[in-house]
Order: sequence, then structure tokens, then C-alpha cells
Amino acid sequence: MSDPLSTTFAALADPTRRAILARLSTGELSVGELAAPFDMTLPAVTKHLNVLERAGLIARGRDAQWRPCRLQAAPLKEASSWIETYRRHWEQRLDRLEAYLQALQAKESVPQAKAKPRKKK
Amino acid sequence: MSDPLSTTFAALADPTRRAILARLSTGELSVGELAAPFDMTLPAVTKHLNVLERAGLIARGRDAQWRPCRLQAAPLKEASSWIETYRRHWEQRLDRLEAYLQALQAKESVPQAKAKPRKKK
Repeated sequence: MSDPLSTTFAALADPTRRAILARLSTGELSVGELAAPFDMTLPAVTKHLNVLERAGLIARGRDAQWRPCRLQAAPLKEASSWIETYRRHWEQRLDRLEAYLQALQAKESVPQAKAKPRKKK
Repeated sequence: MSDPLSTTFAALADPTRRAILARLSTGELSVGELAAPFDMTLPAVTKHLNVLERAGLIARGRDAQWRPCRLQAAPLKEASSWIETYRRHWEQRLDRLEAYLQALQAKESVPQAKAKPRKKK
């Protein structure tokens, strides 16, 4: 059993599943409607829908005749939050690096005694 | 061969790899330093690093003695952008649904002829 975040990212790691989610973002669709633009059989599309349903990214209607798929955005919100936290860390790190480089440049602009030549690689 | 976005999401679909990326967001680390907090062998950690490197999420230093790992945030930015676009669609959809419900409520507040009783489930 995977943790929820891993399940979400694994479900997103496929272009067909991402295209399905993108189409569902405009409203509910039946399996047939979802399958139409893909060059895939209904069972192949159903397999992808099962992966998305297990990941909690879509839900299916209860109507036995027409079980429309609708998206559930909560897991995506979690995935997005994880990436954004990480990106913030990374940006802070770049800020620190920039501050360090500025400090170095400020030091270099002060006249100094003859510097030792750097060792070549 | 997977498309780049699928490769990124697949690389993120593992808690150890996400923990490695989180630790690298504070600076460069050697494989040994990265392996320390995990109850894993060096080869097991190296396997995860190879997946991250193939996905372009980390880069390794050229120094043969100490090949520090550093993160490369560009693929994550792509992944985050995809999710955010999708979330915006979803939010717009919720806005439309809300507008529709408000329109329905406005209609219901107008006195009407005796309504038919709703069919029970």
C-alpha cells in the first residue's frame, strides 16, 4: 500500500490520465464521452479511470445506466502543496546563495595584498 | 520512453525520493550524508538517486571523490504549473456551479403553483 501522496503522483504519471483530468475539469462526463477523443478501447479507458478513482482524483456517479465521472480535487491540492513548499525552500536557498555572492563581490572590491593563484583543476 | 511530466510525477511517487528532495532543498549533500537518516543501504539510496537524476530533479557533482547531489527545480516547476492550471479550471467550475445554484434559489423564491412532491429514492 502506497501513501496517499505517492498514489496521487503515480496516478498523474501518465499523459492519458492527465488528459482525462483536464477534460473533467470542465464538467462531468460518461466513460463513453471520455473515451471518444482517445484512440483507445473502452476497457483501456476504464483501467485509467480505475487508477484515478483509487487515487481519489475522480468519483463515479451511482446511476447504473450512466455513471458520470467527476473530478475530486482534494488530492491534487495536497500534491500541489507539497511541490510549493519544496519550491519555497529552493527559492530561499537561491536567495541565500545570492546574498553570499554579493558578500563575496563586496569583499573582492576592497584592494587586497597579492592573491595566491588558484589551483587549476 | 515517458514524456517529461510523466517522468517527474513518477519520480515524485515515492516517499524516500520526496524526502531526499526535501533534504536537498537546504543545500548540496553527498550520497553518504543523504543515506544517513534512512534505514537503507547505500546501493538502495543510489537507486533512488538515479531515478531522480534521470528525471532531471537532481544533478551530481563531477568531483570523483565527493559527488555531491544538488537539486534542479525546473521539472518541479513544470509539474506545479500543470497542477495549478488544472486547479484553476476546477475553481472556475465551482464558481459556475455556485452561480447556477444562486440562479436556482432566486427562481425558487418566486411564489409558484403547488409543486409536485419529489420522488423518494
